[in-house]
Amino acid sequence: MAVNVSNSKENQIDIKMWTPVIINAFMSCLAYYICVTLIPKVKDMFIQANLFGIDRCKKMSTKIPESLGVVTGCVFLITMFLFIPISFGNCGNMEKFPHEFVELIAALLSICCMLLLGFADDVLDLRWRHKLLLPTIASLPLLMVYYVNFNTTTIVIPKPFRGIFGNILDIGFLYYVYMGMLAVFCTNAINILAGVNGLEVGQSIIIAVSILIFNLVEISGPLWKAHQFSIYFLMPYIATSLALLKYNWYPSRVFVGDTFCYFSGMTFAVVGILGHFSKTTLLFFIPQVFNFLFSIPQLFHFIECPRHRLPKYKSETNQLECSLVKFKYSELNLLGKVFLVLFKYLRLIQWHEKDGYVTCNNFTLINLVLLHFGPMHEAKLTTILVLIQVFCTGIAFIIRYPLATLFYDV
Amino acid sequence: MAVNVSNSKENQIDIKMWTPVIINAFMSCLAYYICVTLIPKVKDMFIQANLFGIDRCKKMSTKIPESLGVVTGCVFLITMFLFIPISFGNCGNMEKFPHEFVELIAALLSICCMLLLGFADDVLDLRWRHKLLLPTIASLPLLMVYYVNFNTTTIVIPKPFRGIFGNILDIGFLYYVYMGMLAVFCTNAINILAGVNGLEVGQSIIIAVSILIFNLVEISGPLWKAHQFSIYFLMPYIATSLALLKYNWYPSRVFVGDTFCYFSGMTFAVVGILGHFSKTTLLFFIPQVFNFLFSIPQLFHFIECPRHRLPKYKSETNQLECSLVKFKYSELNLLGKVFLVLFKYLRLIQWHEKDGYVTCNNFTLINLVLLHFGPMHEAKLTTILVLIQVFCTGIAFIIRYPLATLFYDV
Repeated sequence: MAVNVSNSKENQIDIKMWTPVIINAFMSCLAYYICVTLIPKVKDMFIQANLFGIDRCKKMSTKIPESLGVVTGCVFLITMFLFIPISFGNCGNMEKFPHEFVELIAALLSICCMLLLGFADDVLDLRWRHKLLLPTIASLPLLMVYYVNFNTTTIVIPKPFRGIFGNILDIGFLYYVYMGMLAVFCTNAINILAGVNGLEVGQSIIIAVSILIFNLVEISGPLWKAHQFSIYFLMPYIATSLALLKYNWYPSRVFVGDTFCYFSGMTFAVVGILGHFSKTTLLFFIPQVFNFLFSIPQLFHFIECPRHRLPKYKSETNQLECSLVKFKYSELNLLGKVFLVLFKYLRLIQWHEKDGYVTCNNFTLINLVLLHFGPMHEAKLTTILVLIQVFCTGIAFIIRYPLATLFYDV
Repeated sequence: MAVNVSNSKENQIDIKMWTPVIINAFMSCLAYYICVTLIPKVKDMFIQANLFGIDRCKKMSTKIPESLGVVTGCVFLITMFLFIPISFGNCGNMEKFPHEFVELIAALLSICCMLLLGFADDVLDLRWRHKLLLPTIASLPLLMVYYVNFNTTTIVIPKPFRGIFGNILDIGFLYYVYMGMLAVFCTNAINILAGVNGLEVGQSIIIAVSILIFNLVEISGPLWKAHQFSIYFLMPYIATSLALLKYNWYPSRVFVGDTFCYFSGMTFAVVGILGHFSKTTLLFFIPQVFNFLFSIPQLFHFIECPRHRLPKYKSETNQLECSLVKFKYSELNLLGKVFLVLFKYLRLIQWHEKDGYVTCNNFTLINLVLLHFGPMHEAKLTTILVLIQVFCTGIAFIIRYPLATLFYDV
């Protein structure tokens, strides 16, 4: 009898857990179909509106419509809007609401705001410092709702440091700084690992699928609601992005724009923060973290940073090769020199010196791949970079599961 | 003793009622200051991004930056984001939330989505049919939250019809259609009463101030929370719009774009729907309703409708006069002829016939004012139109208070 009751209770939870997920999956398929149909229809409007780019890695310099991320972003939002009553049904004339409901709306508000600001950035071509400001603004609703909602700002200290800090530590305001910075990092990290056809969307889909797998593994645990919540966002995201990839893959017929990078980064930040697995989310950003750290000397101008650090197109062979940067060694400051020697030692750069001028590859993961594998076709390059992302997801799971026990009580 | 307790309870409600309102007023002042500083700084970016218009009612044809509504809209949103914790404080580790909190976030989501779609419309120059689709999409979050939240779809029947329908009537799904259409109407009604410097912002501010006065009157009643909620939105809205008016008033240095009209209309629809005073909100749209009804024959193409129905600029006198439309009387269908005769009878149009061709003023409120008051300077025209809006607010209050008793138990 007791077994029966517990079984029927489990069944009820199963139904409650999976029914909305299945409907969400169905709606995602529809969203994919709408995006695939819509993108070719609207892309000329973008060119007419002066939103286009020239593909620097092609022989022809035709106008490619830019910022199509706004289309998939809007379809994503509409899908999520229509999903609201399915996820929470009709709660009737309630005085109070489950906090998951508030979180869902707040998360959508952050994503919608990021889409608006990202599109404004694409249209108005804002300056670099705004790229840090915009995600901060867009993450405000999330942080504010987090404040009203939980305001738990304690972190669990990894085992090796418990002697110093104790088991848990309340970091107060710093927790909000961390969450805000997570949004800034996720959005910009994708934005700077870009430049070859299909890479922004390709890497974003791999990250999204990685988080989705993590959610599907964890949904059988006690925190299933948080993971279900994350799945609600990821499936429509993956569906709409796959449609975009279809047109953005080599040879690109549309570009995705900063809009897409912002939108993607904010979606990942949102599910990480609200699902309380932000550290795990970051684990799926290994190539982006590496690319960011590698780029630091150029981003912070310790080393000369050209306007574009894209690989160089050789029209004779129709291949891409490392793009180079040239600067005077004697004009570097101490930090620049340290980075240069360190990166050379780590075999991240190749460095030729002549008449006091140093010529080396630009400090990006894309150039690093070209340095080690040699010049190659653009589609092959994107494929390798996406495979690196997949490989790093494997590493992330190894860190998350077997190794995490060294640092935390899992 | 009992008096004391009730007094202290009233005091507590007073504090709870007014403290956030005062903070909101203070933040609105700040928002005004930010907009006033920001607009001149960013306006050249809009021209560079190909977002500009030529003022058709001026001698000079300089490029005027368009869609600056997106700037005030964003400042409005940021102000509201920062206001979230003030309106609801730290609710601690609550399982459940007051429904006002969900409504606040959902309302912001609808406004943010409308801003995104409005800006996309300005940039991509969407077709007419999208003007009806976009506000419907943006009102989705609101409707969905309404569904999950209340789902009360009963309306109170006006006294004269109670014999037929009873006191209240559940109109079910139609209630959602009504709310969606309210959003569509509010956004587009402002959009079509436009064309002279400062008119879009001018009328919107008058509407917002009218609703604000209504809220301030009603806040002492039992439904004070709904009116407080509305005030939270209206004060930052008025502040940011005043800043925009400063630059949009004759002679315009910036244009507001469809973005602003959508943003304004959605803000009014949101406070009307969530505050449960949508009928009263509509009362403040008398000039817009009139202008819409008057425009119907042209909007639905019973009568020839030129691309622009703006008044005509006479550079010799620096004045505006009626713009005219010319068509063949014999080619009109029956409805067109009926409208023409009706409007002539109501003295809304002046009509000259020659060789089978009819020439008459375009069917807009702006042209009607010029028809009756004669050609005038643009600034004077806007002033008269704004004064008409003020006058109609007076009529609205008369309908709302003394006359409403005829129809409802107030």
